[in-house]
Amino acid sequence: MKPVKIGVMGLGTVGAGTLDVLQNNRIEICRRAGREIQVIQASARDIKKPRSCDLSGIQLTTDPFDIVRNPDIDVVVELIGGESPACDLVLQAIEHGKHVVTANKALIAKHGNQIFAAAQDKKVVVAFEAAVAGGIPIIKALREGLTANHIEWLAGIINGTGNFILTEMRDKNRSFEEVLKEAQALGYAEADPTFDIEGIDAAHKLTILTSIAFGIPLQFDKVYTEGITHITLEDVAYAEQLGYRIKHIGFARKRSDGIEMRVHPTLIPEKRLIANVDGVMNAVLVKGDAVGPTLYYGPGAGAGPTASSVVADLVDVVRTLTTDPENRVPHLAFQPDALSDHPVLPIEACQTAYYLRIPVQDEAGVIASISRILAEQKINIESILQKEPEPGSNQVDVILLTQPVTEKQLLHALAQIGSLPQLAGDIIRIRLEGMNA
Amino acid sequence: MKPVKIGVMGLGTVGAGTLDVLQNNRIEICRRAGREIQVIQASARDIKKPRSCDLSGIQLTTDPFDIVRNPDIDVVVELIGGESPACDLVLQAIEHGKHVVTANKALIAKHGNQIFAAAQDKKVVVAFEAAVAGGIPIIKALREGLTANHIEWLAGIINGTGNFILTEMRDKNRSFEEVLKEAQALGYAEADPTFDIEGIDAAHKLTILTSIAFGIPLQFDKVYTEGITHITLEDVAYAEQLGYRIKHIGFARKRSDGIEMRVHPTLIPEKRLIANVDGVMNAVLVKGDAVGPTLYYGPGAGAGPTASSVVADLVDVVRTLTTDPENRVPHLAFQPDALSDHPVLPIEACQTAYYLRIPVQDEAGVIASISRILAEQKINIESILQKEPEPGSNQVDVILLTQPVTEKQLLHALAQIGSLPQLAGDIIRIRLEGMNA
Repeated sequence: MKPVKIGVMGLGTVGAGTLDVLQNNRIEICRRAGREIQVIQASARDIKKPRSCDLSGIQLTTDPFDIVRNPDIDVVVELIGGESPACDLVLQAIEHGKHVVTANKALIAKHGNQIFAAAQDKKVVVAFEAAVAGGIPIIKALREGLTANHIEWLAGIINGTGNFILTEMRDKNRSFEEVLKEAQALGYAEADPTFDIEGIDAAHKLTILTSIAFGIPLQFDKVYTEGITHITLEDVAYAEQLGYRIKHIGFARKRSDGIEMRVHPTLIPEKRLIANVDGVMNAVLVKGDAVGPTLYYGPGAGAGPTASSVVADLVDVVRTLTTDPENRVPHLAFQPDALSDHPVLPIEACQTAYYLRIPVQDEAGVIASISRILAEQKINIESILQKEPEPGSNQVDVILLTQPVTEKQLLHALAQIGSLPQLAGDIIRIRLEGMNA
Repeated sequence: MKPVKIGVMGLGTVGAGTLDVLQNNRIEICRRAGREIQVIQASARDIKKPRSCDLSGIQLTTDPFDIVRNPDIDVVVELIGGESPACDLVLQAIEHGKHVVTANKALIAKHGNQIFAAAQDKKVVVAFEAAVAGGIPIIKALREGLTANHIEWLAGIINGTGNFILTEMRDKNRSFEEVLKEAQALGYAEADPTFDIEGIDAAHKLTILTSIAFGIPLQFDKVYTEGITHITLEDVAYAEQLGYRIKHIGFARKRSDGIEMRVHPTLIPEKRLIANVDGVMNAVLVKGDAVGPTLYYGPGAGAGPTASSVVADLVDVVRTLTTDPENRVPHLAFQPDALSDHPVLPIEACQTAYYLRIPVQDEAGVIASISRILAEQKINIESILQKEPEPGSNQVDVILLTQPVTEKQLLHALAQIGSLPQLAGDIIRIRLEGMNA
């Protein structure tokens, strides 16, 4: 079979990594795909810059729009990242009848509905395995492997930087700020770490996973997003004493009245496999009604893992070239005309258990008052932990784990606890998911 | 699009489960696949037997050969199991131009080469996701998700019965025999548990995984297979003291001189995720050169999980109906004319670390003698553990962990240790893999 011709936009870490993998594993890939995958053009802001990857035989340009218009190119690979000009590039590539492979989660989460509609129209494929959880083939697993299932819920550690920080805090008793600095030095976190530590990156990925799991359009603006900047060593230690680990989790669940879609720090029982996913590694736990719980684990970022997914997508796209477009795997797992308008629920309606740390004056009756308020709001206490006050202090932390309640119920209760005269500081609350599967 | 018509051979647990899933998730599956999947005929030995699944609209027969000859059927699902008549049925279905979906690991491991050649010839697909690790989409992950990678090695807990037994032994300090009886009562193990506890079932699955990972023909007869019947509570406890868990692992590694393919009990560092896969759950850890380590976890057996994979295969097959056969995913991941003759190595050439338990008379110099023998065979000791003798006894266990050596080296050393005058019983040896990835 004749070679498939590729254009790569962006020669940063992932772009260079993709060229490396295509080059180093050329024979292996060809033995599988049944034909050569040939990069004939690539774009970069600075084409003179020395790069480690082999660029021989590849036409270089500073203008990525050259690539989307190049009539010799069958598949365009977008590895520039960000929304602009990536969105224009992808839409123009589709307009020119080219298939697209991208690793761009922000692009898919925020512009995917428009992009997939355009692709549908032009009968081309837009593949995006690398956009979620790096090297883990989670899009493929959800979209094809679990196609028989009604997906009930999924939970993912889908930001490696955040997981690295929380792991170091627990293992080495180091503060958030200290570990963040190290993550930046190691290149795990950007100079501006906002997207990672505030949960935005995870929200992009959760948007994509939720849509594919439940057959709804992409709705990034509906994700409840909370970062990990307020997690302290005290809470990490208390969680551990209670048999839990704190992880930054993207969580989505289908309920009859709507879909919960939320990113936040979460206590998970330490016995669960996903609670033991440490460092920069990612994992996604998916609960299907037929299969039960399945988990997918691997590196969530980096040149090699991302390139692994990009090249897998390339081979997939190559294989669909002769498929009747109607028979291809739909972009969002469900046929475009079969997406549902099941609503995404506001956070107030979401239901989860809670870890509460309530600093109080160590006086008789304070626990009784807290318990009474929770009981009035029909919030059941799962367990309670009260520390002795430090010598010379009259202040203690009361640690409570609740059973699942709606956010609304909890907020009511917290408002009342907040006005107790014995309260001695801010109440800390972190969500808790049992991950019973 | 018009419905695809299916015939199901076998209405046991998995057959009935498959009908249930197709029925219960009909809308969800149709929203994904873009068309109805209709079971029009099914076979069972006793068609009068009351069954929980809905059989309305399905023509029943006691002769599965009716199904492979039925001109109205597009895809045949083989859920009878075993080699005969399953092999004849599948070959005849192919001969009649039908696609096949099967959950039959013995069939694929032992007759796959012949079956895939026939399918290639007739341009039909034989899909077998359910044959390995039940509901985990590991065939898809390896064959499509990791297609960019040179696979270096893989390790799987691919027999749920064995994993259940080893988990119970460790967690509850119960003997192998006692847990086996419970597994039989719970329906996890067959009345004749040979295939599970002797590693034959795992060897079937490892044969398939190895072939797909490295692009070699299926070679079941070359798998080194060792069961778990000789694992004692003493060894489980010693392993734990050293920071390890004993798991029944199917392991395959590509070396420049050949491929290791072996099933045996294995010590794994307790910190590894795969060491924490417990009970009847399965998991496969795959190390690719680009992606690094990835792990796939889920239920390895049962009606729902197996049906999940069978139906996913059905949807895949349906989607390839309009694909040029040359562009389909090859059965064994690599194009049939690109399979390699890289040899499978005999166990003597395999390299692994070892746990050795050597019962000796507690006399001065015995450790020195053992150490000298190992040093002469160039076997490095990683760690050593010597227990105090029980009161009134002069016998002690010396526990050694070695660094990786070839089986041949180790056997030489063991022969010499075996002739030491202080030896007080049989030497126990269990392999150990660091699973460094």
